[in-house]
Amino acid sequence: MAEIDVPEPFHSRAVALDRADRLAALRDEFLPAEGVIAYLDGNSLGRPLRVTAERTAAFIREVWGTRLIRAWEEGWMDLPTVVGDRIARHALGAAAGQTVVGDSTTVLLYKLLRAAVEARPGRDVIIADTHNFPSDRFVVDAVARECGLEVRWLEPDPRGAVTPAELRAALDERVAVVELSHVAYRSGAIADLAEVTRAAHAVGALALWDLCHSTGVVELALDDDAVDLAVGCTYKYLNGGPGAPAFAYVAARLQDVLRQPIEGWMGAADPFAMGPVYEPAPGIRRVISGTPPVVGMLPVSDMLALLSTTDMRAVREKSSALTAFAIAFADERLARFGVTLASPREPERRGGHVMLEHPAAAALVAELWELGVIPDFRPPDGLRIGLSPLSTSFLEVAEGLAVLERLLTRRHGHN
Amino acid sequence: MAEIDVPEPFHSRAVALDRADRLAALRDEFLPAEGVIAYLDGNSLGRPLRVTAERTAAFIREVWGTRLIRAWEEGWMDLPTVVGDRIARHALGAAAGQTVVGDSTTVLLYKLLRAAVEARPGRDVIIADTHNFPSDRFVVDAVARECGLEVRWLEPDPRGAVTPAELRAALDERVAVVELSHVAYRSGAIADLAEVTRAAHAVGALALWDLCHSTGVVELALDDDAVDLAVGCTYKYLNGGPGAPAFAYVAARLQDVLRQPIEGWMGAADPFAMGPVYEPAPGIRRVISGTPPVVGMLPVSDMLALLSTTDMRAVREKSSALTAFAIAFADERLARFGVTLASPREPERRGGHVMLEHPAAAALVAELWELGVIPDFRPPDGLRIGLSPLSTSFLEVAEGLAVLERLLTRRHGHN
Repeated sequence: MAEIDVPEPFHSRAVALDRADRLAALRDEFLPAEGVIAYLDGNSLGRPLRVTAERTAAFIREVWGTRLIRAWEEGWMDLPTVVGDRIARHALGAAAGQTVVGDSTTVLLYKLLRAAVEARPGRDVIIADTHNFPSDRFVVDAVARECGLEVRWLEPDPRGAVTPAELRAALDERVAVVELSHVAYRSGAIADLAEVTRAAHAVGALALWDLCHSTGVVELALDDDAVDLAVGCTYKYLNGGPGAPAFAYVAARLQDVLRQPIEGWMGAADPFAMGPVYEPAPGIRRVISGTPPVVGMLPVSDMLALLSTTDMRAVREKSSALTAFAIAFADERLARFGVTLASPREPERRGGHVMLEHPAAAALVAELWELGVIPDFRPPDGLRIGLSPLSTSFLEVAEGLAVLERLLTRRHGHN
Repeated sequence: MAEIDVPEPFHSRAVALDRADRLAALRDEFLPAEGVIAYLDGNSLGRPLRVTAERTAAFIREVWGTRLIRAWEEGWMDLPTVVGDRIARHALGAAAGQTVVGDSTTVLLYKLLRAAVEARPGRDVIIADTHNFPSDRFVVDAVARECGLEVRWLEPDPRGAVTPAELRAALDERVAVVELSHVAYRSGAIADLAEVTRAAHAVGALALWDLCHSTGVVELALDDDAVDLAVGCTYKYLNGGPGAPAFAYVAARLQDVLRQPIEGWMGAADPFAMGPVYEPAPGIRRVISGTPPVVGMLPVSDMLALLSTTDMRAVREKSSALTAFAIAFADERLARFGVTLASPREPERRGGHVMLEHPAAAALVAELWELGVIPDFRPPDGLRIGLSPLSTSFLEVAEGLAVLERLLTRRHGHN
């Protein structure tokens, strides 16, 4: 790997920040990636922990291979709620019994949105926003169409999030559900989860949150904030692996009144009774439909064990410092090449990633990948820098952005 | 492990059958399970192959851990259809481009049943049967309720399957979809897939098949039999591991007219365009909703590689011989204790498992598990013997049933 020349004062700053980083030692828990100078896409796919490969292999040999079907009675049946409770405890600020792992985020969004709409009979509006992630918007559209509802699309500042004031202006007693992302997948802007939820409740609506880009990087307090429903993914900041199962949170007070549409044997009160009629399980288990993805739930457990050695306040603090460092580098070294910031400047309004924009973003990302610097491209012109706090150092960010600076210098013919 | 005394002539017969078994060598490809005398539940959860543990670990280290997000462009995006096509080729008798892997069987049943109902507007009846697996019945009920349809429940012989004649008597032009299992999860009876599908088509209805208990053990010819839609699981005879993702088959002729209800970014024509409106992907990809379960799809690939070294005719032949052997043992050695056969006697009407019944089945299965003999209990009185052809020997079946005979002898106080 070639030596990366990081310009001053960023090199010294990065070294100092890494030295002062209380979480720096945890970085050794992740598998190093040969040939990768800077992994700046932890918010698309988290890196595996060192223990994950061997722990998964040992599971296959010793549990699946040896206990075989008996393992369903020896722990697998409870895995969706056991892992769910650990996510709740370490990342969501939620008490046990409200979180379950399974399906994909899209499928869980569909299930919870349908359940929410049906829990508000007589109301015929869903509120959503045009900058939300495609699956969120597509599921909102699909559920509205099939249930004969209308969608009120909010159009927030593309670099911000829906504000409580914007939401209040759209709310009335026709609204059944408000569906929003906590952290915007593109800009990284944080919505005011507590205040938005309160505003929805004021007109009797439910709030359904997509937590994909906040789980494991932004502090959450779902119980204190009176959140109704939420979904999120485990393959970003929870390092669950590509396509790892998602999670759903349903507040305890709503569990017995909600009924999700995909009724399967594993969400039934007694899965092995195999009776004639579906009777939903009490509590959060009724969110489950089919057989839980046992192998898929293993890697996230390793990250939850690591998270349990620290806390979300410390993670968030490092995350804010990482994004601030990236923004300072962009301002001081990249702006002259036409790179602009498309994320909020205020740290408290920004999640774990930074969106930079440049007309040549698509080509730049392709060149960066070739060189072992891995951010993400988001159309039309976004270069997204996702900084997973536990696996990323300040020097790594500095080296990655120094390579970007070198490419921009070459492209623009000056330095 | 104690020596198991297998009574004659079953011991000699088992040894001779194993010696003549052309597939016997493949048994070494599976991980041996310490302490297990006989694994008779391959139709609940197949055993892992020897290569699977290390191959999964290598994937985590070398692909996820090293290629990171780049791997989505280097193969992961296509994995659902690549693995689907291999299932189609090696197990379904179907051409490429019609099978996709993802979700759970329950979720895929929901998606395809909803799509099928909507493809037959103006029709208001679903036909299903009361002996189908709980998820099938629950999903049929749920879809009927939400779409305002009526279910015509057929009540076949509990030891058999719905016959084409029974079905024809229930069919008329109000019927949108017929939803049935190919092999019954309890009795193991095989439905006449081709003839039932033909009967459905004769009134303009679609046929949706649950192939969970036939995939990888019974020969299928989905294309030749003009099947419309099917789902199945990969953790039984395809050895995909606990909770491995399911698969869906949609005949090419129907793909562009069907629209499934859970519209997500990964089923969109261009997932990374992230445009304002969902445009379904052409072909089978539109069945996908969320991010494909990459890690969950790995183990099944190992079994498909093994299946590619033989063919379903040979697998089915061994399967029939295994179930015939188990039935002969039950008839000659266990019937005197009140054990009865609840599966078809005719080999061509029987899938890969055999259902025995005894009033004490629940207690017997618990005792067998303690001794390392692992069949399954199915209420109220079923002792199910699932014989995965590639991983099961005749002597293993003989030893397992000999232990059952010993328990029955002790319980009944005679021999």
